[in-house]
Amino acid sequence: MAKAANKLIYAFCGGDADGRADMNGLLGGKGANLAEMSALGLPVPPGFTITTEVCTYFNENSESYPPGLEKDVLARIGKLEKRLNAHFGEGDDHANVLLLSVRSGGRASMPGMMDTVLNLGLNAHTVEVLAGTSGDARFAYDSYRRFIQMYSDVVMGVGHHHFEDILEDYKLEKGYRLDTDLSSDDWKHLVPAYLAMTKAQSGTAFPQDPMDQLWGAIAAVFKSWMNQRAKTYRKFHDIPESWGTAVNVQAMVFGNMGDTSATGVCFTRNPSTGDATYYGEYLLNAQGEDVVAGIRTPHPLTILEREAAGSELVSLEEVMPELYDELLEVRETLEKHFTDMQDMEFTIQQGKLWMLQTRTGKRTAKAALKIAVDMKQEGLIDRHEAIRRVDPNQIDQLLHPTLDPDAEADVLGHGLPASPGAASGKLVFTAEEAEVWTGRGEKVILARVETSPEDIGGMHVAEGIITSRGGMTSHAAVVARGMGKPCVSGAGEIRIDVKAKTFTALGEVLGEGDLVTIDGSTGRVMRGEMPTVDPELGGDFSKLMGWADEVRSMGIRANAETPEDARVARSFGAEGIGLCRTEHMFFEPRRINHMREMILAKGEDERRGALDKLLPHQRRDFEELFRIMAGLPVTVRLLDPPLHEFLPEHKTDIETVATDLGVEVSEIEARISDLHEFNPMLGHRGCRLGITYPEIYEMQVRAIFEAATALAKEGVSVKPEVMIPLVSTQSEIQMLKALVVETADKIIAESGVDVAYQVGTMIELPRAALAAGEIAEDAEFFSFGTNDLTQTAFGLSRDDSGGFLEIYRQRGVLERDPFATLDISGVGELVRMGTERGRATRPDLKVGICGEHGGDPASIRFFHKTGLDYVSCSPYRVPVARLAAAQAALGVEAATNA
Amino acid sequence: MAKAANKLIYAFCGGDADGRADMNGLLGGKGANLAEMSALGLPVPPGFTITTEVCTYFNENSESYPPGLEKDVLARIGKLEKRLNAHFGEGDDHANVLLLSVRSGGRASMPGMMDTVLNLGLNAHTVEVLAGTSGDARFAYDSYRRFIQMYSDVVMGVGHHHFEDILEDYKLEKGYRLDTDLSSDDWKHLVPAYLAMTKAQSGTAFPQDPMDQLWGAIAAVFKSWMNQRAKTYRKFHDIPESWGTAVNVQAMVFGNMGDTSATGVCFTRNPSTGDATYYGEYLLNAQGEDVVAGIRTPHPLTILEREAAGSELVSLEEVMPELYDELLEVRETLEKHFTDMQDMEFTIQQGKLWMLQTRTGKRTAKAALKIAVDMKQEGLIDRHEAIRRVDPNQIDQLLHPTLDPDAEADVLGHGLPASPGAASGKLVFTAEEAEVWTGRGEKVILARVETSPEDIGGMHVAEGIITSRGGMTSHAAVVARGMGKPCVSGAGEIRIDVKAKTFTALGEVLGEGDLVTIDGSTGRVMRGEMPTVDPELGGDFSKLMGWADEVRSMGIRANAETPEDARVARSFGAEGIGLCRTEHMFFEPRRINHMREMILAKGEDERRGALDKLLPHQRRDFEELFRIMAGLPVTVRLLDPPLHEFLPEHKTDIETVATDLGVEVSEIEARISDLHEFNPMLGHRGCRLGITYPEIYEMQVRAIFEAATALAKEGVSVKPEVMIPLVSTQSEIQMLKALVVETADKIIAESGVDVAYQVGTMIELPRAALAAGEIAEDAEFFSFGTNDLTQTAFGLSRDDSGGFLEIYRQRGVLERDPFATLDISGVGELVRMGTERGRATRPDLKVGICGEHGGDPASIRFFHKTGLDYVSCSPYRVPVARLAAAQAALGVEAATNA
Repeated sequence: MAKAANKLIYAFCGGDADGRADMNGLLGGKGANLAEMSALGLPVPPGFTITTEVCTYFNENSESYPPGLEKDVLARIGKLEKRLNAHFGEGDDHANVLLLSVRSGGRASMPGMMDTVLNLGLNAHTVEVLAGTSGDARFAYDSYRRFIQMYSDVVMGVGHHHFEDILEDYKLEKGYRLDTDLSSDDWKHLVPAYLAMTKAQSGTAFPQDPMDQLWGAIAAVFKSWMNQRAKTYRKFHDIPESWGTAVNVQAMVFGNMGDTSATGVCFTRNPSTGDATYYGEYLLNAQGEDVVAGIRTPHPLTILEREAAGSELVSLEEVMPELYDELLEVRETLEKHFTDMQDMEFTIQQGKLWMLQTRTGKRTAKAALKIAVDMKQEGLIDRHEAIRRVDPNQIDQLLHPTLDPDAEADVLGHGLPASPGAASGKLVFTAEEAEVWTGRGEKVILARVETSPEDIGGMHVAEGIITSRGGMTSHAAVVARGMGKPCVSGAGEIRIDVKAKTFTALGEVLGEGDLVTIDGSTGRVMRGEMPTVDPELGGDFSKLMGWADEVRSMGIRANAETPEDARVARSFGAEGIGLCRTEHMFFEPRRINHMREMILAKGEDERRGALDKLLPHQRRDFEELFRIMAGLPVTVRLLDPPLHEFLPEHKTDIETVATDLGVEVSEIEARISDLHEFNPMLGHRGCRLGITYPEIYEMQVRAIFEAATALAKEGVSVKPEVMIPLVSTQSEIQMLKALVVETADKIIAESGVDVAYQVGTMIELPRAALAAGEIAEDAEFFSFGTNDLTQTAFGLSRDDSGGFLEIYRQRGVLERDPFATLDISGVGELVRMGTERGRATRPDLKVGICGEHGGDPASIRFFHKTGLDYVSCSPYRVPVARLAAAQAALGVEAATNA
Repeated sequence: MAKAANKLIYAFCGGDADGRADMNGLLGGKGANLAEMSALGLPVPPGFTITTEVCTYFNENSESYPPGLEKDVLARIGKLEKRLNAHFGEGDDHANVLLLSVRSGGRASMPGMMDTVLNLGLNAHTVEVLAGTSGDARFAYDSYRRFIQMYSDVVMGVGHHHFEDILEDYKLEKGYRLDTDLSSDDWKHLVPAYLAMTKAQSGTAFPQDPMDQLWGAIAAVFKSWMNQRAKTYRKFHDIPESWGTAVNVQAMVFGNMGDTSATGVCFTRNPSTGDATYYGEYLLNAQGEDVVAGIRTPHPLTILEREAAGSELVSLEEVMPELYDELLEVRETLEKHFTDMQDMEFTIQQGKLWMLQTRTGKRTAKAALKIAVDMKQEGLIDRHEAIRRVDPNQIDQLLHPTLDPDAEADVLGHGLPASPGAASGKLVFTAEEAEVWTGRGEKVILARVETSPEDIGGMHVAEGIITSRGGMTSHAAVVARGMGKPCVSGAGEIRIDVKAKTFTALGEVLGEGDLVTIDGSTGRVMRGEMPTVDPELGGDFSKLMGWADEVRSMGIRANAETPEDARVARSFGAEGIGLCRTEHMFFEPRRINHMREMILAKGEDERRGALDKLLPHQRRDFEELFRIMAGLPVTVRLLDPPLHEFLPEHKTDIETVATDLGVEVSEIEARISDLHEFNPMLGHRGCRLGITYPEIYEMQVRAIFEAATALAKEGVSVKPEVMIPLVSTQSEIQMLKALVVETADKIIAESGVDVAYQVGTMIELPRAALAAGEIAEDAEFFSFGTNDLTQTAFGLSRDDSGGFLEIYRQRGVLERDPFATLDISGVGELVRMGTERGRATRPDLKVGICGEHGGDPASIRFFHKTGLDYVSCSPYRVPVARLAAAQAALGVEAATNA
């Protein structure tokens, strides 16, 4: 193999390194950064990286190594021994012992792979030498037993619990409570039992030869690249198998060699607030894992930090001022070098600082925003880079109240994080109760099995919504996101009994009026009232958004029908309305009965009579919407849902409606039965209503254009776009466009003002995407309805799939909920095909998308690539979409700091 | 225009003609056949045809004629005058008057176009001349008023009823009852009133100049090519606008000039039985329309016919033996010439025979079959032509009882012709009653709003099924077709109240026990018991089927799961089972409760317990099926429907089941509520069940292979194909194929015999068609489930669309029910794409289709073109599919004699 002739090993040592940070394809992220730090002259324990190409060779050649590798590794170990004046394995009894760490490290971080083996090189002989040279037998034997356990686990497949059982038994026998109660003799005593356990479980003796240990660890790393979990992960994250992983072999350093030793982690800026101050934690006389384990409380790195936290614990800045200064310099060097906030690990061994790792630090949304804007101001990065630095998904957190991270949560159950934000309130079980309780000044959380359009009023007044059924795009989820209200949907663990007004979780029953808190960002449902933190949108936010707007090429619109939503949308920067669902306008109490009259009408004349009563309401709605959106386009979708959604469901409601309308109960029941459908999603809805009852669409078009011309007369710029839903054939759009144009042109001509408008269609059925070429002969714009397109392409009801989609995710059948992130290879192909075919017929066809995916960054990247003109999303997702669209325009493949 | 330089007019006259039968593109079918008859020396009234190219010129050039046309027409009229020694318009008062007929005639016959104007050339002057030359003033004036009425209607747009009103008023005034009561003076008196009406309604005076009349009629024909009805018809029948229509201008002849005149129609063979005997009707002293109008009873053409009908009416053979002989010669000539049964019109004017038209005659299924086979035996046509001659759709009639065509029908309402055949019986409203009534020897018709799997038992014993809801692929329709039982579905005009046991139609209420008859071939529902005719499948049938089998390249399988169905399918020539729906096996009373136990199980162990009880039943089913289908492949689809379909619906049933299973009613109710779905079609079904409850599929696979290996041990050849339903992603088929293979291989290995098998998938979701390339990595065969594919591509539920699809058809949005005939441009593209992509991955991928379209000839043509390996259809459609597949292989585009 030609490739195997390449350099197999890249060393780093002192101020010298074979590799560089941008070689992360060959060396993996960890290896490349170790080389880079070393080259920068930072104190990195010397070592070397075996390249990812060796991994590929290994897996393609029956787990053998390319020629020359063994020789190279041996030579490199020799150099390490020389450099550090230490022996790897057998050597002078008084010489230092060289111990190694072996870590995997690919181009992308990947769970499911072998991670780390520490203290490699210890055996019955070297442990004794180490005890001698370190003068600390307890340290030596503790290190040895840790090594046996770790190596047995990750290399030989003998689980941790086997060793923990031995330890627990021993502690019981001796009456010890803590691990620290064990002496060096105790640890020494345990070693044979550990070794025996490994042999018993694996059938193989624990390797005593350090070189055998090393090759075992290297092979384990390479093999773990091909294990099932890793393969599955790669499949879902589009990581090519050919990438491979590198192996990093590095001299061990110890932070637990007395009070001049320490270990810690630090961030170049505060990862929580984004403040440009050093931030970190450390422990004296400790190993890395002790900082994480939580047995000892880590100390603050700086005085500032200590004071801010009101802590008594002495800072590193105080206890080791010189080393702290050295660490301060490292901070400067690395941040300037990498031009991003770094997350570093360090160890101080007997007064000497060693840097073990640096990587881009994870951060909160708030910190990401502040760091990006600050670094741009500091001149470290440019605007485009600042845009790239913030994960659009995080932006959402900045717009909604969040749970106080310090508060303790009494979790009752989980559902889907359907609409972000946290809220507390008293449980109510019907929309009516929600209105009654809030009417008397209470805050409520509305709990329903599922919501329906009849619940809108109650959802509006509630602080938040929980449903036990339905997915990310269920009615509850969509409406709540539109309202910017927290929602947890599909919480199957919770049983909601609306009749009995009970809410059963974890075997406990809550009732009406009981306090609960929901976190729509995580899907958690908690008992009681919990403190929340309100969002602050500072100047940084608008700065970044401004930069994003300069860069993006796609327009951002909002899905909105109420004046409140439209105002929020415009204030968040929406450039128009991409979806105004007119049916939502019919659910208001004053109107719903006119709608019902229309549905119960006998024949066209009666139907027209009822529609005449609805007309002035619709006209006023449109006037208000057009006024708020003055100068911007407003896409109005004509009536879409099946008519039965407007009729009451329950006996008592039916009786009330019968009285109100002066008709027989039996008449309403007969109509409900007539309208019943087995699969309403695939039933008599959308443009099928327009074809069968043209007078309904005619009234709606009349309302739109009476409103538009009235405002135009006032000098308001109005840009209506009439959208026909659920088209599947050319003849549907042809027929209905003719109806729209005829009605609109007549009203415009009569008004004496000019109103330019367009007529277009939703593309939300596979057949429509296929027939897009013909449909575009009449449609002047397309708006992909990716919710319904996902439902029909997959044959998957968003309202019914909550339960088994979860099992699908657990069993690795689907990685992502296709209703949350567009299924690019399936549904996406329909979007691409529809766009291409539509534009082949009509090159200036305007193409947008108004499904829930319009607010999802990954989907937005795809829409940008596909050449869509705009996305339309919930008002509260508009900032997310603006940023995501900018990143898409910059070619960002995925969020960097998520 | 270069084209206009072509010959514009083709004349036919005596034994001479410019045109030929194969010039029907240029001359239209009628014109080409007139030319052909003329060239054959048959007595055709002379005339000429204006070509379809003139039509195209006319419509592309603002309704003007190509240069030279007027001159040519004038010249041709002149020749006609000379030949016939007659004058068109003004001339010698004693000369004969030349009257013309003007008829449209395109390449394909097309409703909505101008049809015919007769007696053209009459005016105030020529009518007097005609009265003189014919010696019959009544004849002359009657002809004149008929001409005014016809011309005003088709050329000037003045409806018939205006003239009929005048005539009725006049008859009332005069006290006349019949038209024959009017004298020549009466008709003469009416003419001015007719002319005044035309002027009043059209605003234009009726043209008196015969040449103006002629050009008016020619223009009307050409304009009618572009009217809306014609355009819509062309669109749905893929007739290019460029074809245009021809105009035939021909000298009039009269069958109503006394007792030596006559008019009639005849068929070269009996169109009802197919017997090779002359068959026809005539009337002495009558015009063509009188034969059709039904005022006088037409006489039989031949003595044989008269005797067969036991009629007293004297035949033409007897009354005009010489002319009959002449007509007999025409028969010989034309049938030999056209090598198909001809339908001819003739007129005898004062002892002289004239042939006015010949065309291929329409015929019954029985006749089509007999004529095709006879003509092949007679050497008139070859086998391929015989195959082409029978419309596969007609074959169905041969397999089912039909209504006696002579019986009078008291029609109560119409539904969809869901499953062919006629049946009578007493009305029952539940499946249980059906079993009770038939148990005591009654014949019943089962009437339901909709059927469900629970009704299968009742459907089985009923003579036929009516439903008031559901389309051509509703449960009732599909199951009835499978059983070969008549069914009328979606009869919305009939209100079926199952609780009240009433059946309301046309305002009348029928109840349990009332006799009704249904005709599943036409969709009619009738009162009382009507006589039916049983099918006879003679030797002709098997001859034709044998020829078809030699020709076709696609395999034909059947959808079947019961032994009865499988036997019928094999006897009809099925080459395997393409779809065995295993769930149908669970509805038997002895098993359904095991199934319910399984559904109610708490956890996998209980579920496995219940499945163990189902296993022996399934195994026996498969054993029987495999035995019947020995040597042929059997595709077994694993469980597909959502589990709630197996649970009872009604309170009393729930109580019964609770008692039977020893569980609480509330437990069953809770499970029913858990399983409830808003859109079950898009819910937890198909392979989603296999992923979430692998033990169900495991049991089914076990049953299949235990059965297969048991039979293999007996030496029976078994070819199981395991089919996974509702796959949308590669991971689903991957995971479930692994499960199938593991289970199957273990059983085969244990059995010690070898059973070859395949694992494949349904392609029934748009996403599966798009992802076919990936899915074929695991699937060894594809079977397109075009029912569900149509539902999801259109977003259209077959159970809910009955109502508005009908309106769609009425308003011209959709021509055909996409559940009956595949939507080639939409759903068909998915089939094509899925096939191509699948075969790109796996070139030997076997591809079939098992939706209802598998039995539809138009769809079968498409499947053949797309390269499918087989179609699978209801057992009773197998012969239809065999013939349709043969025709597809012969390149037949559409049925010829339908």
